[in-house]
Amino acid sequence: MDVVEYRPEREQYVWTFGGVAPSHRITPGTLLRLWTEDAFSGRLTRTSDRPSAVLDMTEVNPQTGPFYVEGAEPGDTLALHIVDLTPARNWAASTTIPFFGALSATDRTALLHDPLPEQTWIYQLDRDRGTVLFEAQRSDLRLELPINPMLGTVGVAPAGREVRSSLVPDKFGGNMDTPEMRAGVTCFLGVNVEGAMFSIGDGHYRQGEGESCGTAVEGAMDATILVELVKGGAPEWPRIESDSHYVVVGSSRPLEDAWRASQIGMIGWLGELYGLDRLDAYQLLTQISESPLANVVDTNYSAITKVAKDLLPAGAAYGGMHRYLRDQARTL
Amino acid sequence: MDVVEYRPEREQYVWTFGGVAPSHRITPGTLLRLWTEDAFSGRLTRTSDRPSAVLDMTEVNPQTGPFYVEGAEPGDTLALHIVDLTPARNWAASTTIPFFGALSATDRTALLHDPLPEQTWIYQLDRDRGTVLFEAQRSDLRLELPINPMLGTVGVAPAGREVRSSLVPDKFGGNMDTPEMRAGVTCFLGVNVEGAMFSIGDGHYRQGEGESCGTAVEGAMDATILVELVKGGAPEWPRIESDSHYVVVGSSRPLEDAWRASQIGMIGWLGELYGLDRLDAYQLLTQISESPLANVVDTNYSAITKVAKDLLPAGAAYGGMHRYLRDQARTL
Amino acid sequence: MDVVEYRPEREQYVWTFGGVAPSHRITPGTLLRLWTEDAFSGRLTRTSDRPSAVLDMTEVNPQTGPFYVEGAEPGDTLALHIVDLTPARNWAASTTIPFFGALSATDRTALLHDPLPEQTWIYQLDRDRGTVLFEAQRSDLRLELPINPMLGTVGVAPAGREVRSSLVPDKFGGNMDTPEMRAGVTCFLGVNVEGAMFSIGDGHYRQGEGESCGTAVEGAMDATILVELVKGGAPEWPRIESDSHYVVVGSSRPLEDAWRASQIGMIGWLGELYGLDRLDAYQLLTQISESPLANVVDTNYSAITKVAKDLLPAGAAYGGMHRYLRDQARTL
Amino acid sequence: MDVVEYRPEREQYVWTFGGVAPSHRITPGTLLRLWTEDAFSGRLTRTSDRPSAVLDMTEVNPQTGPFYVEGAEPGDTLALHIVDLTPARNWAASTTIPFFGALSATDRTALLHDPLPEQTWIYQLDRDRGTVLFEAQRSDLRLELPINPMLGTVGVAPAGREVRSSLVPDKFGGNMDTPEMRAGVTCFLGVNVEGAMFSIGDGHYRQGEGESCGTAVEGAMDATILVELVKGGAPEWPRIESDSHYVVVGSSRPLEDAWRASQIGMIGWLGELYGLDRLDAYQLLTQISESPLANVVDTNYSAITKVAKDLLPAGAAYGGMHRYLRDQARTL
Repeated sequence: MDVVEYRPEREQYVWTFGGVAPSHRITPGTLLRLWTEDAFSGRLTRTSDRPSAVLDMTEVNPQTGPFYVEGAEPGDTLALHIVDLTPARNWAASTTIPFFGALSATDRTALLHDPLPEQTWIYQLDRDRGTVLFEAQRSDLRLELPINPMLGTVGVAPAGREVRSSLVPDKFGGNMDTPEMRAGVTCFLGVNVEGAMFSIGDGHYRQGEGESCGTAVEGAMDATILVELVKGGAPEWPRIESDSHYVVVGSSRPLEDAWRASQIGMIGWLGELYGLDRLDAYQLLTQISESPLANVVDTNYSAITKVAKDLLPAGAAYGGMHRYLRDQARTL
Repeated sequence: MDVVEYRPEREQYVWTFGGVAPSHRITPGTLLRLWTEDAFSGRLTRTSDRPSAVLDMTEVNPQTGPFYVEGAEPGDTLALHIVDLTPARNWAASTTIPFFGALSATDRTALLHDPLPEQTWIYQLDRDRGTVLFEAQRSDLRLELPINPMLGTVGVAPAGREVRSSLVPDKFGGNMDTPEMRAGVTCFLGVNVEGAMFSIGDGHYRQGEGESCGTAVEGAMDATILVELVKGGAPEWPRIESDSHYVVVGSSRPLEDAWRASQIGMIGWLGELYGLDRLDAYQLLTQISESPLANVVDTNYSAITKVAKDLLPAGAAYGGMHRYLRDQARTL
Repeated sequence: MDVVEYRPEREQYVWTFGGVAPSHRITPGTLLRLWTEDAFSGRLTRTSDRPSAVLDMTEVNPQTGPFYVEGAEPGDTLALHIVDLTPARNWAASTTIPFFGALSATDRTALLHDPLPEQTWIYQLDRDRGTVLFEAQRSDLRLELPINPMLGTVGVAPAGREVRSSLVPDKFGGNMDTPEMRAGVTCFLGVNVEGAMFSIGDGHYRQGEGESCGTAVEGAMDATILVELVKGGAPEWPRIESDSHYVVVGSSRPLEDAWRASQIGMIGWLGELYGLDRLDAYQLLTQISESPLANVVDTNYSAITKVAKDLLPAGAAYGGMHRYLRDQARTL
Repeated sequence: MDVVEYRPEREQYVWTFGGVAPSHRITPGTLLRLWTEDAFSGRLTRTSDRPSAVLDMTEVNPQTGPFYVEGAEPGDTLALHIVDLTPARNWAASTTIPFFGALSATDRTALLHDPLPEQTWIYQLDRDRGTVLFEAQRSDLRLELPINPMLGTVGVAPAGREVRSSLVPDKFGGNMDTPEMRAGVTCFLGVNVEGAMFSIGDGHYRQGEGESCGTAVEGAMDATILVELVKGGAPEWPRIESDSHYVVVGSSRPLEDAWRASQIGMIGWLGELYGLDRLDAYQLLTQISESPLANVVDTNYSAITKVAKDLLPAGAAYGGMHRYLRDQARTL
């Protein structure tokens, strides 16, 4: 098994999906041991840090990559199995960025209000307990919260000659900000350009569904990823398979459209897996869908449709790729 | 403990929140043993039934009630504890109603498409196994699905002199269609009119999050409800407390607004419970919110914000009302 | 011609569509000479008045009526021809109501911002010049603006046993807040209940499209209305005919759905008028639609689709009812 | 005055804003005489042409350009004065593209319907009468419609290192599809990259507001453009000035957010022009805004806020640039 280790220097950070040269060319089957900087590019370190003072908004959500996958062509399916996600620092940060967040006026939901106060929270990590510590800044509460490491951003180069900011989620994946993107899952992305050109970033030690204020418990991450390629079969929207669930991520606005996309995506997937007619799949999904939100803060909102495997017959998505990668991961 | 049993006859069905005389006047502390007809008013019984032929769309979602609660005044909080929900029939139905459903053009998302095909599914209940049987109608799949009985509709008379269809969810509760409304929870609703005038209906033997096609596994239900009243404290949006979670339901359009309402509602609740500043609560919620959708099909969409109690300090919402009602229920 | 004059006393104001007894029973052909109080129920009179201090939010948008029209049955079409609208006072008012308005957080677009400042503007009317005077309160500008009297609210009792606040626009008309509702037009509304039970109110001496801050140049109005009835032909959404345009009003959320409803309504109307196939009408409308917004502030948003008659062949909507009423009005 | 004439060959068409080398480098003050191909790249020529058969969806909305403007730096304001737009062919085309259009399911408003029928309309131009001929294809109607030539697409390279499809409207302008973009107006765009890198395309001989079916009366266009540069002053959203109006274009989803952006943009502009406080401008705009829709079909929807100059005091936006360019144009 080829193994690539990569910890980008600051000047190697990438800020877009598409539009940049690959950091590496890899073959399917490669194991990546990557390090990702936090979404703030490491600039937010103290509770006294105000984002408008310390952040450079042209340098947020740095990506590690992109990786050119040999043999990947438009219409193929990239399979990224997340073997492991481990916090790379002993602390993480979250903050309220002016005119950003689900419960704030934004440049899109453009209103006449002044921005909400800028406030920064620093979370200390306790590796033994597997927790981060929430400390209220304007009132009095301290809470240990279990960590649940995830990647906010996983994506390939977009279709249609576009180059998109690493802050955007769409059909190419990107900044989906879903807690579903955790260790043990396989993410399937449709390939749009030669080599797929995927990258990852935006590690969260923990995030609630919806990512209300727009920034999770943001921290640098050590990520171990197994890369595989399926010829053909490109899904329209990103899919995730875990041992327990099939998951589709839709990203659009308004939020109902994001969710509709994920539902239509799942109806298609159920059809592929079980030969289900679309109306039958619509009916079945009506009764078994889990529909947690991912983010309601990014340029597009992301919504999830997931179904539990234990409610369904045995299936083998992409020829059993998830199980294969899971088994591979166990050998490491 | 006062006990009221009530199985309305067809001519006693109620189709609105507000606007009708009470079926009963009860005192706080009363136990209700109720029967609710299914959302189709029992008219959909065979897979060959087409909704456009057999349904009367002016008589869907029949309510059992309304109940006038002695002493309930505007600004008070009605507490409805769902002691038990048991399917009252051995079968249930679901269907695709023309121009209704999340993945269909509707009278609001008005498009030029013809309606989707009308198709009806009948689910047989296996009480011993606690399952309903999904049988595909246009392809080949049979699946046993665990039942998860819930009430689609729980509401009080609206504010502002309004009378709303039992198909509508809003601040008064109503047709929220959330699987959170199951046995063991307490629903808190703000009282808008003297007597609160609440009713229930729309039993689902099972429903996925979002209720994609617009009709769940719809069946008649035996519902046991304990009624209590808290003076004052009316929440703006419906709240639900279970042994494990605090839940707020927001209902609006677009879907992001429904969810925002539920988030603001939860930020308020966390403030009441723990004295948390709003920005601190916003931050905490960002990291711990669960955000499952309820329905994306009704006149308003409903979205959920819920937080797990085991992540939070001990709290006693409404003076410990949920625990009190839970204990009361155990004595029955 | 029967003539009814009516200036309701304060205790005769009506706050809902549906749910109240008629003020008058009239026959088709009746001429109404009505007075309507302003949307603030006359409580906002000085620039120093703060809405949170002087308004009673349970008594806004008072209606004059409702009128029971003899012979009107569900499925019929009520035709209301606005003969004249004349300001009934020499001043009018506008204000910023906390958490109301298109550029403010609201109870639906629920955010964490503090409310915008409360500010009131009083407009003096110059009858000779036909203008109202805008006087900036926080900066330095005075502008004479031509008056363009309109009715914010025209509606019938809703379908489905509902009673709706006079603040709501929907299929029954109501608080559509469109400048299209001016003297010289005929409004066609589908009848939902025996007698139609229509009312009017919410006079604006002038309003921009969208009604951004939520309150127009609000003033008491003398309104002269000719009432007619067409048997059958009830439109799904309110229609307006002027000498120059056909207009359909859609009201929903999000705003694209309001507009879609108005577009589908116009496609239907073009089909009725000219026998146009729906795809042909879709194409034609794509090239000739005027699409001004009405309001983006009410419980539902309202959007307009209008087409200029001079682009179209001669037509006779509702048997030439608008022309007939226009001629009738000229005889007064 | 420098004059550049440019009629790109097919291999010179550009499909994105950003991401391509300039076709020309020009200085401020240059006059451009350009030719633009239609949005279908000229592939739709007969009513029997079905878009799914003849169109290449990776080659729609070809752009003429981009032009590198000497001296243009991020934060500057590009002024493009449209001197003249003249149809370059004697016919134009419109069609229904599967899963595209405001009254169709799309990949975003993802539903289970089959696509609407594909139908193509060809419009013959009568230059003497200044009309195009609508001919119904599925029913019986022929209508002469006045031409109203406009450019669907005018834009600069985006900010944030992005490259966007020429089908997208956003802050950088792009595919706004507004009838406001006609001869005689000046469009002001904020510069995001060195040289501004602007291009134009997507000529419409006529278009209704909203562009319902997604394709206007699409035709090749001869466009005469005067280019100027204002140092600094970059507006957040595209502005247009005509002899009669100030116009701001917002582009987002849902539609209310597009319109909010245009309103906030106009409030800012009124502040710049007249020193108006933001609340005073909000109030004034509430009473004078015209709010016609632009498109409800593209990746982002576009909405317009415009105000009539004759309601306002004399002003001189960008130092009177529009008047200057208007005068320059008269000398040609």
